[in-house]
Amino acid sequence: MIDLTSTIAAISTPSGMGGIAVIRASGKQAFDICDKIFVSSSRKKLFGQKTATAHFGKIVFENNVVDEVIATVFHAPHSFTGENTVEISCHGSTYIQQQILQALIHSGASMAQPGEFTMRAFLNGKIDLAQAEAVGDLIASSTRSMHSVAMQQMRGGYSNDIRSLRDKLLHFVSMIELELDFTDEDVEFADRDELKKLLQEIITLIAKLTDSFSVGNAIKRGVPVAIVGAPNVGKSTLLNALLNDEKALVSDIEGTTRDAIEDTITLGGALFRFIDTAGIRHSTDYVENLGIERTYEKMAKAAIVILLLDATRHETLKSVEEIQLQLTPEQKLIIAVNKVDNPSTLSSQFSTLNHIALSAKNKTGLQELEQTLLKHAAIPDNLERNSVVSNARHYEAFIHAQQALIRALEGLGSNLSEELIAFEIREAIQHLSSIMGDISDNDILGNIFEKFCIGK
Amino acid sequence: MIDLTSTIAAISTPSGMGGIAVIRASGKQAFDICDKIFVSSSRKKLFGQKTATAHFGKIVFENNVVDEVIATVFHAPHSFTGENTVEISCHGSTYIQQQILQALIHSGASMAQPGEFTMRAFLNGKIDLAQAEAVGDLIASSTRSMHSVAMQQMRGGYSNDIRSLRDKLLHFVSMIELELDFTDEDVEFADRDELKKLLQEIITLIAKLTDSFSVGNAIKRGVPVAIVGAPNVGKSTLLNALLNDEKALVSDIEGTTRDAIEDTITLGGALFRFIDTAGIRHSTDYVENLGIERTYEKMAKAAIVILLLDATRHETLKSVEEIQLQLTPEQKLIIAVNKVDNPSTLSSQFSTLNHIALSAKNKTGLQELEQTLLKHAAIPDNLERNSVVSNARHYEAFIHAQQALIRALEGLGSNLSEELIAFEIREAIQHLSSIMGDISDNDILGNIFEKFCIGK
Repeated sequence: MIDLTSTIAAISTPSGMGGIAVIRASGKQAFDICDKIFVSSSRKKLFGQKTATAHFGKIVFENNVVDEVIATVFHAPHSFTGENTVEISCHGSTYIQQQILQALIHSGASMAQPGEFTMRAFLNGKIDLAQAEAVGDLIASSTRSMHSVAMQQMRGGYSNDIRSLRDKLLHFVSMIELELDFTDEDVEFADRDELKKLLQEIITLIAKLTDSFSVGNAIKRGVPVAIVGAPNVGKSTLLNALLNDEKALVSDIEGTTRDAIEDTITLGGALFRFIDTAGIRHSTDYVENLGIERTYEKMAKAAIVILLLDATRHETLKSVEEIQLQLTPEQKLIIAVNKVDNPSTLSSQFSTLNHIALSAKNKTGLQELEQTLLKHAAIPDNLERNSVVSNARHYEAFIHAQQALIRALEGLGSNLSEELIAFEIREAIQHLSSIMGDISDNDILGNIFEKFCIGK
Repeated sequence: MIDLTSTIAAISTPSGMGGIAVIRASGKQAFDICDKIFVSSSRKKLFGQKTATAHFGKIVFENNVVDEVIATVFHAPHSFTGENTVEISCHGSTYIQQQILQALIHSGASMAQPGEFTMRAFLNGKIDLAQAEAVGDLIASSTRSMHSVAMQQMRGGYSNDIRSLRDKLLHFVSMIELELDFTDEDVEFADRDELKKLLQEIITLIAKLTDSFSVGNAIKRGVPVAIVGAPNVGKSTLLNALLNDEKALVSDIEGTTRDAIEDTITLGGALFRFIDTAGIRHSTDYVENLGIERTYEKMAKAAIVILLLDATRHETLKSVEEIQLQLTPEQKLIIAVNKVDNPSTLSSQFSTLNHIALSAKNKTGLQELEQTLLKHAAIPDNLERNSVVSNARHYEAFIHAQQALIRALEGLGSNLSEELIAFEIREAIQHLSSIMGDISDNDILGNIFEKFCIGK
């Protein structure tokens, strides 16, 4: 299924109309194929031009001039894919982009699959698989923290650390396996104390990395926030104010929040994802009014819960305690009191409560709420310099590697046979290697790259 | 207002996320500005690199690595704008695009206005104004015929013909003006017969060009088509079938066509624009049912009128004649009979009528209708090799030039004073020159380029 002999082509810039667009061709025949449609005034050919040089010419297809373009050539291995590559920079008309792509296909190129350029960069050994995945994350990044995590990973990230530790494991496992060849002689090539130390070291490093996944995942998918509170307390108005637009349906009639609103905002370079809390009604009792089960369900998914109270109603602080009881130690609770602009505000009732006073309607107090959200999100500042795992595939591989290493370590303590210890270490090595790309299954590779955009 | 001393920067590729994106900087300081944020592993500077060479490096802004990029340098005057230019090809994340643009602005570049790169190409003498306008049309082109017309114009189009004829006019007008200096001596430097011949020649050429404007305009804005017919004859279903999607609201209830539907389809490389004919009702008489006034109004705007009849109703052919009477000789009428799939079809009534039988519901007969539309659109095949005026500003300038030339020609016949003849010729020259860009008014220039996209 994976074919590196063909030359692939795709529109690599965002879809639609723009000033310019870039169509990219990569593969052994890239120069020959482009030379069939590229005509310069001096009749020079792209084949034979120096690497990293740009050439002005026309694209001619079916006897018509499609466009005047700049074609930049890159020779293998000095290109992103590691293959001969031509980047054709044309006028950004949708018609021209399609025509040039068609002209390339007609001249012998294949339409690139999503992520196929990056997949080739990986298969040609230009980058490891973790870096290739980071390219996808980098392109998708829309906030500073997403960008930092992806950039860190693209530039090597934890790959180098893992690679060096894996190589040490490989050394030990070969030693142990050598011992197995000399079972009669009772030799010990692998120093057990050193091995224990190494296993401990790797287990500690992996624990640090897997711990970072909650941050990495929050950065990638957004920090999940749930706004909970009684009906008509102003949850939608608050969300709306935070979103600063009209996306959320807001109304004075109870229960008008539409289902399945899940919106995101960016604060201080971090993404926050608001969990929809629509459908909380059908009850008279206050706590029951919170929708109990549904609310608790939503709250369980949130890293930060905003409990919204109403300054104009007599609230019992007991309900606050009940919410607090539902939260895990990792979850953060922000108590916000809404409608403080209202003349009928009952000023004293929340005096004992550490809260943020706001008016969602008049957009006051929002800044304090946003600062508190950002503080509770606890996104580290120095993401550029710290390895954070944001990829679920890596997280899973780390967990499996760690389990195998723990079994090996325990085995060393309980005099497990060399064979089984070697087996566990081999398993850990395999999981660690899979992060960097030692994957025999093409389907897994396919799954990784199919989420990419076409043209990358 | 027009400042050529600054260095401008913009994201030049279509907006949004993609595999890669290109940020462009142009101006005297382009290399210096980019060198403030571009860091290559060998510490080489873009300043001093050969023209049309591409360089790999990092973009560093506020001590963070924004991306790994390819920067291609072009030296003045060997660039699109005629100025020093750097094109930074980065990963197509929206965050990265914005960060690189901000880094450039922070380093001394100004945000480019819409079309400012192309305006600079014009002001720096790389292209004339008609070519600059064609760049905008080229980018906007979404069909083969739009593309052909724009490409023809961008590659010189009628500019060269006009320029050579204008230069001949200039010669004659100088001769006539020279005669004015020798009024006492009754000399004749300008050969009147030759001048008449030249004026005739130019008038003929301009007439050919202004005649092409209806085609040029149809190509650019779409050939206007009106579908007319009695209520419930299936106009919306037909439009819908042509559009091949669910955009038009279709219903069995009379009068449900929503207002202001104006949709376009592309057939054989040409664009067709359907004029909305909603709101035809409130009548019992058949011809009145057509909505008479409103229908006639719509029909007047159409180049092609599709009269839709109903195969299941007794229709009077008189109504067909009435429609025909309303049409100008340039307008084309297509008679289509709908619902031929219906069992209650009255087969014989249209036998004397040259018509297309179709079922909009079952999508039969559509191909014949589309072929007929394409035939009637009469878009010339060889647009690549023929000058077509598609620009309203040019059309107006041609009309004014022609009027002045006709007055000059008539003046020559009626012994008008040399002074007035020279005045008319000067006026024609001015209008012709304005097409290529001899415009003293910056506001006019501003109007031309503000319709461009940013980054071009």
